[in-house]
Amino acid sequence: MARRIDLNCDMGEGFGAYVIGDDAAMMALVSSANVACGFHGGDPSVMRDTITLAREHGVSVGAHPSFQDLHGFGRRRISGERPEDLEAQLIYQISAMQGMCAAHGHRMTHVKPHGALNNMAAADPDLAALCVRAVQRVDPDLVYVSLPYSETWTAAERAGLRLACEIYADRSYTDEGALTPRSAPGAVIHDPAQSLDQVLEMVVNGHIPTTGGKRLPVEPVTLCVHGDTPGAVDIARALRTALEENGITIAPFAGAGAAGEAGR
Amino acid sequence: MARRIDLNCDMGEGFGAYVIGDDAAMMALVSSANVACGFHGGDPSVMRDTITLAREHGVSVGAHPSFQDLHGFGRRRISGERPEDLEAQLIYQISAMQGMCAAHGHRMTHVKPHGALNNMAAADPDLAALCVRAVQRVDPDLVYVSLPYSETWTAAERAGLRLACEIYADRSYTDEGALTPRSAPGAVIHDPAQSLDQVLEMVVNGHIPTTGGKRLPVEPVTLCVHGDTPGAVDIARALRTALEENGITIAPFAGAGAAGEAGR
Amino acid sequence: MARRIDLNCDMGEGFGAYVIGDDAAMMALVSSANVACGFHGGDPSVMRDTITLAREHGVSVGAHPSFQDLHGFGRRRISGERPEDLEAQLIYQISAMQGMCAAHGHRMTHVKPHGALNNMAAADPDLAALCVRAVQRVDPDLVYVSLPYSETWTAAERAGLRLACEIYADRSYTDEGALTPRSAPGAVIHDPAQSLDQVLEMVVNGHIPTTGGKRLPVEPVTLCVHGDTPGAVDIARALRTALEENGITIAPFAGAGAAGEAGR
Amino acid sequence: MARRIDLNCDMGEGFGAYVIGDDAAMMALVSSANVACGFHGGDPSVMRDTITLAREHGVSVGAHPSFQDLHGFGRRRISGERPEDLEAQLIYQISAMQGMCAAHGHRMTHVKPHGALNNMAAADPDLAALCVRAVQRVDPDLVYVSLPYSETWTAAERAGLRLACEIYADRSYTDEGALTPRSAPGAVIHDPAQSLDQVLEMVVNGHIPTTGGKRLPVEPVTLCVHGDTPGAVDIARALRTALEENGITIAPFAGAGAAGEAGR
Repeated sequence: MARRIDLNCDMGEGFGAYVIGDDAAMMALVSSANVACGFHGGDPSVMRDTITLAREHGVSVGAHPSFQDLHGFGRRRISGERPEDLEAQLIYQISAMQGMCAAHGHRMTHVKPHGALNNMAAADPDLAALCVRAVQRVDPDLVYVSLPYSETWTAAERAGLRLACEIYADRSYTDEGALTPRSAPGAVIHDPAQSLDQVLEMVVNGHIPTTGGKRLPVEPVTLCVHGDTPGAVDIARALRTALEENGITIAPFAGAGAAGEAGR
Repeated sequence: MARRIDLNCDMGEGFGAYVIGDDAAMMALVSSANVACGFHGGDPSVMRDTITLAREHGVSVGAHPSFQDLHGFGRRRISGERPEDLEAQLIYQISAMQGMCAAHGHRMTHVKPHGALNNMAAADPDLAALCVRAVQRVDPDLVYVSLPYSETWTAAERAGLRLACEIYADRSYTDEGALTPRSAPGAVIHDPAQSLDQVLEMVVNGHIPTTGGKRLPVEPVTLCVHGDTPGAVDIARALRTALEENGITIAPFAGAGAAGEAGR
Repeated sequence: MARRIDLNCDMGEGFGAYVIGDDAAMMALVSSANVACGFHGGDPSVMRDTITLAREHGVSVGAHPSFQDLHGFGRRRISGERPEDLEAQLIYQISAMQGMCAAHGHRMTHVKPHGALNNMAAADPDLAALCVRAVQRVDPDLVYVSLPYSETWTAAERAGLRLACEIYADRSYTDEGALTPRSAPGAVIHDPAQSLDQVLEMVVNGHIPTTGGKRLPVEPVTLCVHGDTPGAVDIARALRTALEENGITIAPFAGAGAAGEAGR
Repeated sequence: MARRIDLNCDMGEGFGAYVIGDDAAMMALVSSANVACGFHGGDPSVMRDTITLAREHGVSVGAHPSFQDLHGFGRRRISGERPEDLEAQLIYQISAMQGMCAAHGHRMTHVKPHGALNNMAAADPDLAALCVRAVQRVDPDLVYVSLPYSETWTAAERAGLRLACEIYADRSYTDEGALTPRSAPGAVIHDPAQSLDQVLEMVVNGHIPTTGGKRLPVEPVTLCVHGDTPGAVDIARALRTALEENGITIAPFAGAGAAGEAGR
């Protein structure tokens, strides 16, 4: 099994005078950054700064597109949008991010939708196919970051898009391989030791432990760390250190060149 | 002298449920469309529709970036923006437009900034250089649409960017070759016959007639027609017909392959 | 039965350079205007102009608050908003409108929520109660414009808020007294004669004719006419003329002083 | 001379998921809060929370209206806005704030424009008169918070609006009584002892010390403390403690009932 993993984090989510998260500190800890594209957070200046910071740290960057919902920070489930309009919004955001990267000497490697859009697409085949299609229309070489047991995974695989299998340290999994909904008990793992155990089980042994006691096969490529929760930097630093102490190498998946093969 | 001219028009300036101008009618009359990029008007859906319509009509498309000012429709002069932030906003918009074009089977050929930004850049060397730099960082092959006697012209020429020399039918010119400010008497030419004469003088004879009685040399490549004024479609149709009756061919400058050489 | 009716229309829905509907023409035809408050359309300048125009025409004005959704024109169903936050948004909008009216010499008489919010509240007791509460917290003397057979009606009645019973000329009704969903056949009445018949049946005879052949009792106070559909002004003018020819007086309900008693 | 002073602070400037400043801590230290109205920061939920927090702490609240400029946080100088439109924007914001206060059991006592608008109005008689007029049209009993030697002071006095004379602890003053522009050396006073001395000189002795060595008469009513700078809470706490140790009472000016008389 893999003895390496990418650490990805949502970044560049400030707007104008507003700041969320400590990107400067987090950039030293992760290997991939999902950069907000201005629809739920982020603006061209923040994008430029985040891309530049990532380039200086050797961190891969991807687009982190969202519903158009600055006020709700992309966390509100928006319905009533025509699919073709949502697709246009995604193409717009990913294109803007790709051009910003090129103009600032970095290369965009991946796409990971944000918040409510990402959650909805994971469970909705049509929305998943829409997201995959938008990515592909901008650049078929982009990697789609996705939960392994999800509609987005299925849609990207069907479309022939490269995939990076994403896992979570601090979220438990249902027997179907989905994240336990936050409203359910035990959804969030607060104990760092338990989080580490879960990650090692997934990375080293290739199994997702589920709340029902199952073990689902997985070949994780990237681990999501949070940037905007209290103590985020300390949690990320501790996790990274613990992974390295357990012989896991932290490196961008894009650099590994194996993104397309990894998965569940 | 040239017996051909491009007709360019600002398009795709609607937003959500809001519509400005009759793009469907205008697209049949012009040869280039400057497409709003979402900052003063336009949204991803409108951009997609406008790009698709242009492609179907064989009309060239360019980015029409602006200050971030939906409420003011990009017509307000915004100061206090840091130059590097404005540059990032332009890169963002032009990149988004370029990606949208590629995703919808069309090629973006040019950039023409909108409204207050365009007016300010024409008279401000630093702002002109900023606009030129933003275009060049996205794609050095793009053509910059500019008034011939302007700071943007000088900046683009110095930077080695290809230029398309833009003229106006319904605006008079100062002895310095600038548009007479709208606040001054005689700034706007209301008489269609006088407008036509001015265009023919510029296109056929290669002279800009000025309010002081001078004749400034010019090699016009593209003529701006307005899309959002009362009777815009009828005015554009009449002008196009009159030009053709005078032996002028209407065609996209980008197709002419001579954009880089044309100018003042 | 009543031989009078108020004609209400949504107005002031432009934004910046964007215009929707022909408010100047419509204001001469209606007796009440529901004025957008800046969240789905409208801005302070448009509000001022609309209030002033209404005052000059002797037209009553009300607040027309909405979800915060300029891009979707308030027509998208937004979920995931916390109820207390939506309530705050309504209080904000209604207060702004009330202050704008006072500053421009007019009095705000009523509130009618817009678009998706209004439709959702009509069918959702909690959302209906929230809307009613927001109105009441700003000014308990305001009149709530509502469909008679709806959750908003029930909620407003329970809260002791004054009600104005609203009817539609061009929409058919289910046996439960709700508007037939637009997705269903026969939802919209396109024939002017049939529209007029329906209105007369409701205004003169006090019955809502339903698609199932029932007749539901109703005491209509205000009739909704549309301002942003093709031919809106002509349709409104014809309807007004036909009503007057049938002996129905058109007048603001607020002036009638009977708003609180009218209803289903 | 007065042995009392109000401490005012800009608050409620977050937006959606974005937070600026530590309002909870600051509210325990000040006696008046200037609450953002949604145009440069703030949203209805933040306004509600800030008003409620202020009410619980016995802190007076005022409207803190701004240019419509969320992205620039109201700090960009916006020109090209028609005066009547800016006035409508102010009336809208102040009205919304007043209604929100009433709905949440608090009373709005004052208005202090924000950022670029406030700075521009202090030096521009027309803009000053516009701001004063907007306040007066919403409620002539509101108090206008203003620098003593400024165009806003003059305009409010001429209009008969009540004034609260505002001073700064950490800014030096020109011989004309204006704040030294931030671009000039010595504009900001970084030494807490020097700040305290300046405040005591103004509050106890009734003199503004200027950079040219003058002493301008002043009757200060409210002292501005900053909420969004590094260490803001500690600085405010230290200043408050020092003032109290020097026998100065901290209390809302509105409660003093003397707002109308105080001034330069």
